[in-house]
Amino acid sequence: MTPSEPTETRTEARPTQTATLAEIAREAGVSAPTVSKVLNGRADVAPATRTRVEELLRTHGYRRRRAEATRSPLIDLVFHELESAWAMEVIRGVENVARDAGLSVVLSESAGRLTPGRTWADQVAARRPHGVVLVLSGLDESQRALLTSRSIPFVVMDPAGDPGADVPSIGATNWQGGLAATRHLVELGHRRIGAISGPPQMMCSRARIDGYRAALETAGLPVEPGLIKTGDFHHETGYRLGRELLDRPDRPTAVFAGNDLQALGFYEAARELGLRIPEDVSVVGFDDLPVARWVGPPLTTVRQPLTEMAEAAARLVLELGRSPSREAPTSTRVELATSLVVRTSTGAPPVAGS
Amino acid sequence: MTPSEPTETRTEARPTQTATLAEIAREAGVSAPTVSKVLNGRADVAPATRTRVEELLRTHGYRRRRAEATRSPLIDLVFHELESAWAMEVIRGVENVARDAGLSVVLSESAGRLTPGRTWADQVAARRPHGVVLVLSGLDESQRALLTSRSIPFVVMDPAGDPGADVPSIGATNWQGGLAATRHLVELGHRRIGAISGPPQMMCSRARIDGYRAALETAGLPVEPGLIKTGDFHHETGYRLGRELLDRPDRPTAVFAGNDLQALGFYEAARELGLRIPEDVSVVGFDDLPVARWVGPPLTTVRQPLTEMAEAAARLVLELGRSPSREAPTSTRVELATSLVVRTSTGAPPVAGS
Repeated sequence: MTPSEPTETRTEARPTQTATLAEIAREAGVSAPTVSKVLNGRADVAPATRTRVEELLRTHGYRRRRAEATRSPLIDLVFHELESAWAMEVIRGVENVARDAGLSVVLSESAGRLTPGRTWADQVAARRPHGVVLVLSGLDESQRALLTSRSIPFVVMDPAGDPGADVPSIGATNWQGGLAATRHLVELGHRRIGAISGPPQMMCSRARIDGYRAALETAGLPVEPGLIKTGDFHHETGYRLGRELLDRPDRPTAVFAGNDLQALGFYEAARELGLRIPEDVSVVGFDDLPVARWVGPPLTTVRQPLTEMAEAAARLVLELGRSPSREAPTSTRVELATSLVVRTSTGAPPVAGS
Repeated sequence: MTPSEPTETRTEARPTQTATLAEIAREAGVSAPTVSKVLNGRADVAPATRTRVEELLRTHGYRRRRAEATRSPLIDLVFHELESAWAMEVIRGVENVARDAGLSVVLSESAGRLTPGRTWADQVAARRPHGVVLVLSGLDESQRALLTSRSIPFVVMDPAGDPGADVPSIGATNWQGGLAATRHLVELGHRRIGAISGPPQMMCSRARIDGYRAALETAGLPVEPGLIKTGDFHHETGYRLGRELLDRPDRPTAVFAGNDLQALGFYEAARELGLRIPEDVSVVGFDDLPVARWVGPPLTTVRQPLTEMAEAAARLVLELGRSPSREAPTSTRVELATSLVVRTSTGAPPVAGS
């Protein structure tokens, strides 16, 4: 037997194992090598047999013995959609950790589905990576069972802040970010501060707007529902909702945008109306994408440490893979701190508007 | 023998094979399974043996029989550096083709080295992808031999336009792009047109500037060396060299920037001097990154079809993998067309400057 062959036939004595591979084979009425083939994602198993074996692996809570040698030097990274403006920041973070660990990164996109396809899970089982990092997406029950029975750990990197119950996950402090951005505007002297929000079904949008509200309330300022506009995270809504805010006779002197792209859309709205940033109107973004430094004027924004979050997710998944086998994955939620980066898109309010 | 086992022991009758696996084993003084282990990237082979076998594989021009079943459903994508502003456009293109073909993308970074490390090549040999797409980097002789002996095809996606001699590669028409950008400015009435170039050691920079020169010369305009500034492809040099051009008493009324980031740096230089774009000075970029649409004013630029180029590279590498085994890889160079995208950063020259 070479070092790269599976070793699960030697696991019978392990105390935390509820059933051995041989027992599962007996119960399924197949040979032990057939169960091994299913675990390895081999194609030469009849679909009905595969389904029966998978079902028994799940009901018995079978977990493959951790055998470093059977793992491929890979780490899987799955995106909800690669179109996201910050996908690159995340890829960089996972790549940094993978490179140091001598691993390569396998990239997949669930193409807008909340969970990657069934084929994906089979491919992951077959290629046996050290772990899986999921960005803004999760796994369904059977996918979780599939990975768990192969002892392939997974972590959700979830800047939206809405992870499942017992899923290890990494996020950011969105509420604090909204608070810091709005406090900054209050401290500059602004009293009428508008907000352009991301989609309300994403928890991160809600948290940012709640932070905005908290800043206004603790400063003794009224929260005017008419000054809070709800859209999505794209440039276009920043422009359109920016125009709605700026076209008001009692327009705000400053705006907290849900993310950097919305802030840039707001720039365009201000430019069309001949309003100067920050002399006539101030704006704060969220994310601190590279583009925030490149625009004129450079954008004051809340930095979300996307690369560090991705690094943390990758490190956590490797750690889960090294730790001894457990009955259930650890429940872990880590939120990394956001921080305000002051550039030149914010200033004191114009005299007429104060 | 299961379908996922290597099949090279059955290749002895093939006519184009210069040596069989058995002959190489005999010459190396090892068993055929040992040669097979080397081909599969197994760890359990003594380094000296591995070196001897690799050397014989190379000198005999051994090429593994193409056996679809032995390939992993992967395609490798290697970047010179992931920091590149357009890496995401490339990843998307390769991902599009991979997804349609039921493959996942393995991402690596050669971390600024022109060729990925030795470990990388061993890992690729071990994971047996359908092919390798290299972005702005190449392979050394031993890496090429390693991949060739495993029948793993590779294609260089090379926007810089400097591929090796017999390497299949995909590029873009940089010269035509520089020509189109500058002609556009000439047609608007500009007579003093400056240029900010990328690094001269990259062929794409030279081609773009040569296109700029050709447009001036065919319009009967002088090429003034003092109006051509050379930097790198970053925002910072666009700003600094933009200031140098705009601080001249006889400043140009329009500038052709080497890429979009330099154009944005130029925006900042103009803004600092209180010059409006395009009323006081026009600027054209190169690439058409998403950010070109988001800035104020939206940037006129030469679109480089990065996603389509990456798709073409991925399709070509899969095609090379499907075609029958050949003695040497096809020499292929495809350049996809660039195109001018006119937005609002360009206009007629100011009256005083014409």
